[in-house]
Amino acid sequence: MKSMTIIHVLFLFSFLSSIPHYSYASVNDFCVADLKGPDSPSGYNCKPVSAVTADDFVYSGLVAGDTNNTFKAALTSAFVTDFPAVNGLGVSAARLDIAKGGSIPMHTHPGATELLIMVEGEITAGFMTPFALYSKTLKPGDVFVFPQGQLHYQVNSGKKKATAFLAFSSANPGAQLLDLLLFGNALSSDIVAQTTFLDIDQVKKLKARFGGKNLSKHMSM
Amino acid sequence: MKSMTIIHVLFLFSFLSSIPHYSYASVNDFCVADLKGPDSPSGYNCKPVSAVTADDFVYSGLVAGDTNNTFKAALTSAFVTDFPAVNGLGVSAARLDIAKGGSIPMHTHPGATELLIMVEGEITAGFMTPFALYSKTLKPGDVFVFPQGQLHYQVNSGKKKATAFLAFSSANPGAQLLDLLLFGNALSSDIVAQTTFLDIDQVKKLKARFGGKNLSKHMSM
Amino acid sequence: MKSMTIIHVLFLFSFLSSIPHYSYASVNDFCVADLKGPDSPSGYNCKPVSAVTADDFVYSGLVAGDTNNTFKAALTSAFVTDFPAVNGLGVSAARLDIAKGGSIPMHTHPGATELLIMVEGEITAGFMTPFALYSKTLKPGDVFVFPQGQLHYQVNSGKKKATAFLAFSSANPGAQLLDLLLFGNALSSDIVAQTTFLDIDQVKKLKARFGGKNLSKHMSM
Amino acid sequence: MKSMTIIHVLFLFSFLSSIPHYSYASVNDFCVADLKGPDSPSGYNCKPVSAVTADDFVYSGLVAGDTNNTFKAALTSAFVTDFPAVNGLGVSAARLDIAKGGSIPMHTHPGATELLIMVEGEITAGFMTPFALYSKTLKPGDVFVFPQGQLHYQVNSGKKKATAFLAFSSANPGAQLLDLLLFGNALSSDIVAQTTFLDIDQVKKLKARFGGKNLSKHMSM
Amino acid sequence: MKSMTIIHVLFLFSFLSSIPHYSYASVNDFCVADLKGPDSPSGYNCKPVSAVTADDFVYSGLVAGDTNNTFKAALTSAFVTDFPAVNGLGVSAARLDIAKGGSIPMHTHPGATELLIMVEGEITAGFMTPFALYSKTLKPGDVFVFPQGQLHYQVNSGKKKATAFLAFSSANPGAQLLDLLLFGNALSSDIVAQTTFLDIDQVKKLKARFGGKNLSKHMSM
Amino acid sequence: MKSMTIIHVLFLFSFLSSIPHYSYASVNDFCVADLKGPDSPSGYNCKPVSAVTADDFVYSGLVAGDTNNTFKAALTSAFVTDFPAVNGLGVSAARLDIAKGGSIPMHTHPGATELLIMVEGEITAGFMTPFALYSKTLKPGDVFVFPQGQLHYQVNSGKKKATAFLAFSSANPGAQLLDLLLFGNALSSDIVAQTTFLDIDQVKKLKARFGGKNLSKHMSM
Repeated sequence: MKSMTIIHVLFLFSFLSSIPHYSYASVNDFCVADLKGPDSPSGYNCKPVSAVTADDFVYSGLVAGDTNNTFKAALTSAFVTDFPAVNGLGVSAARLDIAKGGSIPMHTHPGATELLIMVEGEITAGFMTPFALYSKTLKPGDVFVFPQGQLHYQVNSGKKKATAFLAFSSANPGAQLLDLLLFGNALSSDIVAQTTFLDIDQVKKLKARFGGKNLSKHMSM
Repeated sequence: MKSMTIIHVLFLFSFLSSIPHYSYASVNDFCVADLKGPDSPSGYNCKPVSAVTADDFVYSGLVAGDTNNTFKAALTSAFVTDFPAVNGLGVSAARLDIAKGGSIPMHTHPGATELLIMVEGEITAGFMTPFALYSKTLKPGDVFVFPQGQLHYQVNSGKKKATAFLAFSSANPGAQLLDLLLFGNALSSDIVAQTTFLDIDQVKKLKARFGGKNLSKHMSM
Repeated sequence: MKSMTIIHVLFLFSFLSSIPHYSYASVNDFCVADLKGPDSPSGYNCKPVSAVTADDFVYSGLVAGDTNNTFKAALTSAFVTDFPAVNGLGVSAARLDIAKGGSIPMHTHPGATELLIMVEGEITAGFMTPFALYSKTLKPGDVFVFPQGQLHYQVNSGKKKATAFLAFSSANPGAQLLDLLLFGNALSSDIVAQTTFLDIDQVKKLKARFGGKNLSKHMSM
Repeated sequence: MKSMTIIHVLFLFSFLSSIPHYSYASVNDFCVADLKGPDSPSGYNCKPVSAVTADDFVYSGLVAGDTNNTFKAALTSAFVTDFPAVNGLGVSAARLDIAKGGSIPMHTHPGATELLIMVEGEITAGFMTPFALYSKTLKPGDVFVFPQGQLHYQVNSGKKKATAFLAFSSANPGAQLLDLLLFGNALSSDIVAQTTFLDIDQVKKLKARFGGKNLSKHMSM
Repeated sequence: MKSMTIIHVLFLFSFLSSIPHYSYASVNDFCVADLKGPDSPSGYNCKPVSAVTADDFVYSGLVAGDTNNTFKAALTSAFVTDFPAVNGLGVSAARLDIAKGGSIPMHTHPGATELLIMVEGEITAGFMTPFALYSKTLKPGDVFVFPQGQLHYQVNSGKKKATAFLAFSSANPGAQLLDLLLFGNALSSDIVAQTTFLDIDQVKKLKARFGGKNLSKHMSM
Repeated sequence: MKSMTIIHVLFLFSFLSSIPHYSYASVNDFCVADLKGPDSPSGYNCKPVSAVTADDFVYSGLVAGDTNNTFKAALTSAFVTDFPAVNGLGVSAARLDIAKGGSIPMHTHPGATELLIMVEGEITAGFMTPFALYSKTLKPGDVFVFPQGQLHYQVNSGKKKATAFLAFSSANPGAQLLDLLLFGNALSSDIVAQTTFLDIDQVKKLKARFGGKNLSKHMSM
């Protein structure tokens, strides 16, 4: 029986990929991102399988973030640029820490649905359509889903810090904070006011806070 | 030669779909939506092919909208609910009319990229990431692309009315106006202020304008 | 200014979906599953938007499972059949509890990649290709990815109970335990032995344990 | 050891889908089409898993077709309407028989790539772009690929009958014969001539053969 | 208040992408094609975000084409090779100009559905299945949809020039004119005649017109 | 009439891709893999169209494999690494030869559904869910479908050799033999025993046969 060794097995197995141009590297069971190469619409190129080790499939950074900032909150991500093994696999994760009184302000993920899994504390979360608000106060054991591209927020509504894990339906969900979109880039105060109906003084105040340059209307065109 | 008639052709053709259970209705070359039935993640159920006529493939409503409103603008859509033939085909259209001084305020399409094709007048359009503004003033013959889920706006920056056609990468792109998301539903002024950094007075002013009820923080939870 | 009320806004907005056949229900920003209706390749039909409430977007069952069983482990799921709001959104979640000495035995998810987020304790997890083992011992803060369809396992390798959250790249990832596939159904011992190279006595022993009927080779054909 | 029976296993397994609303039917490992129900962009609704048997996964009709027809050829299909188990699974098959001197005339599959696997005889097959012809004479053991939507043909170029199997990248590839598109429906001879540059006499001759009615230009508009 | 500056904001935001390997270039909100690099099944590689400007998102070539040619028609495209910003975004556009008496002859787009938006004049457009013609005469404000891969045509049926915009469900829809497929490449007259049932004289006449070389049957095999 | 030559045609056709940057190579009607370049989640980069010939679209290796091995079986593949033309096209093929008494042991294709088309002899094939076996004995003309990711097997249950063709719903389906996953790599006997409930002696016996190294539990972590 011992004579049926690995040699015989490989003899069969070679047929599985046709001997002359056999290359295990091409079996795209996974595609760990080569972040040094270019991105494409489907993700990054794959690191050669021969260079992949078990370490590639672990990311050890999903620990508590530092909430000592304006928002009293931290979002620690395990997206493809953090964790190259999720490249092409349609899922990624993050950790959310919000100190008492803090919040993750209004934002969207243009390319992914978000699941929030409550671990500790209390978060009030919601997303809005033009006619409806879907909001709930969440406790550990609750899961909330924010459908793809919807504007949403998370507020620590409890009396101590809150922690949650997030899962996304994309390796690269993006994250666009409304205040940074409106006030953090070169968009002029005039255009912001005209296209949001905010008062011009309010716009200028927030541009000062979020760093946007108050350029004239025709600057970039 | 005349003896090679349609009868012989159909004799062959029956094999194309295997005689015993032949049903042309099942060939999903198209899937005109049955809007009376339920929606699904891939779109509506298909109307039976036997009930489909050439009229299903035309929508005659892409005419100038009435711009006599708050925004001095009108967006006339040919989405799947308007034009059932685009169901499942990954594309839809709209017509944009903006009177002098008008604009389509900040909004997103959570499920589609938008192409804007300028036809008449001048529109200044843009979308923003946290660090960059991508904005241009467009003239007839210009096409602008707003990638999926990005916050964007269109302002008539010319001296007369402006017209454009829009194409979307989905039969059902959605359309979410920022003001209606923030101020048009039951979201409380407190939460809006906390998660946008807008002043509470500004929030209340816009809720009054866009119809949102100013409910207390814990109303819907 | 107060005269610019919701009425004017709706006047514009009606154009957004073309008045005559306006139906908000069709805007597929989300598609909460109607589990009473049929399933399709893209998921379940959508519950009417008018019947959707904030409660639909929360699932409160992601709590510790009972590990008092053969495997000393419990997998508590928030898949589409548990949590209809994830229908069509390409993501779902689960909670994993493994008592000391327990494990989740070899299994696959035929339709999804799995992310494991460690919360408490120590788990040794891995997946295998024919030529490589990708295995790591995980501590809180670690994330591990099991690419779609790969055979994998999770073992509590620590000295106390272990807890993790799982995210999947599908609303309905499936879960197929190897022992139940081989020994839990009507597959005959002869066929199992022939197609796994296990000894026939081993097969019969595990069929007795996992409930499979030991039928003759030609039973179901 | 015998006491670790199926009962214990199910106790664990119930957690795999969360006891209260456990329903194995929902695990969409497969989705055998319910052809009596409606079609959707993603395919047919699923037959309940409880009604599915091993017989559903077999189709016994891929036998030699009758080539005694105009084309001296037969295409026997195993598409979703023939073989409901392929619903939603992205693949289907067919068998091609071409008698000596016969051919499958110019046609497209709008929704699928086609692989042709030669079994017996000799077929000359090809597809064309505006600038290139990709054509080869095939012998048993050869595989040829016709990319999605490309116009292509298969001619028996040998001295005896030819047989091949076809695989498609869709459960419902469609099949559109050029002659039937141009001459087999209500398209007027005038329009055909104008849009193909064929002589009007040639058009009328083929309409007579393939059964198209020679209606005036404005009939259906 | 002024002390809450951009610095504090960035302190938070750095967590959004995890400081140590932060790279905004990887956030695939868009993927402007690098046309100098290779193509892939999902499109071209992305130009680095740092090199992207607002100009990338505009294409200024959708102007009237020159209709002084055989077809009295011009199709001006804004596909990915013209307009690299649509890469990976699933949509593109074109402009159609047809002089009086002209037409766009029979053709297919193998990889995309086409929407035609009428702007000026009158076009009679249609597509065919083997058993049905779906044709309509279109006026400004009409939209017509040609489902993916279907053979179709557009004829100026009015008394002056006609203009339309086209939208496609792909960044790269392709365009295959039937006459060029049949008569414009190296496909032999014999094979064309055998696989279309056109008379050999008709075939030779059109090959002379559309430039195909009349090679013998076995040339390219 | 002869004056309407190819020159006029190209004059029109140049507009089809916009003269200034016309490049036919970019029309992604097909994307023959450049196997020397990197892989990506959507497949390999495309070989330049100018370098593609008719030979690229044929693979001549789907002949009988050598069944003189442990399994008395051979699987000869036409996957993307064997047949680069299927890159990005969502389909591939293989040939299965099983000598009398042989079998293809338990395995999965993580990324594809498999269709088996019987050509000669008799094969008993099946796949299993935890609660059901779907198995049939197949004769020439039968087609069997193994849904994506399901564990399955094929046994020659007849009295002579058996041959079948396989079609897959992916250009790169992968192939993972259960014995090689469990016993052919560095997975320790202890972990195998713990996560499969196999007896340790059985595990060691099969590791010896299939070549797996019997390392201690903590080797690779």
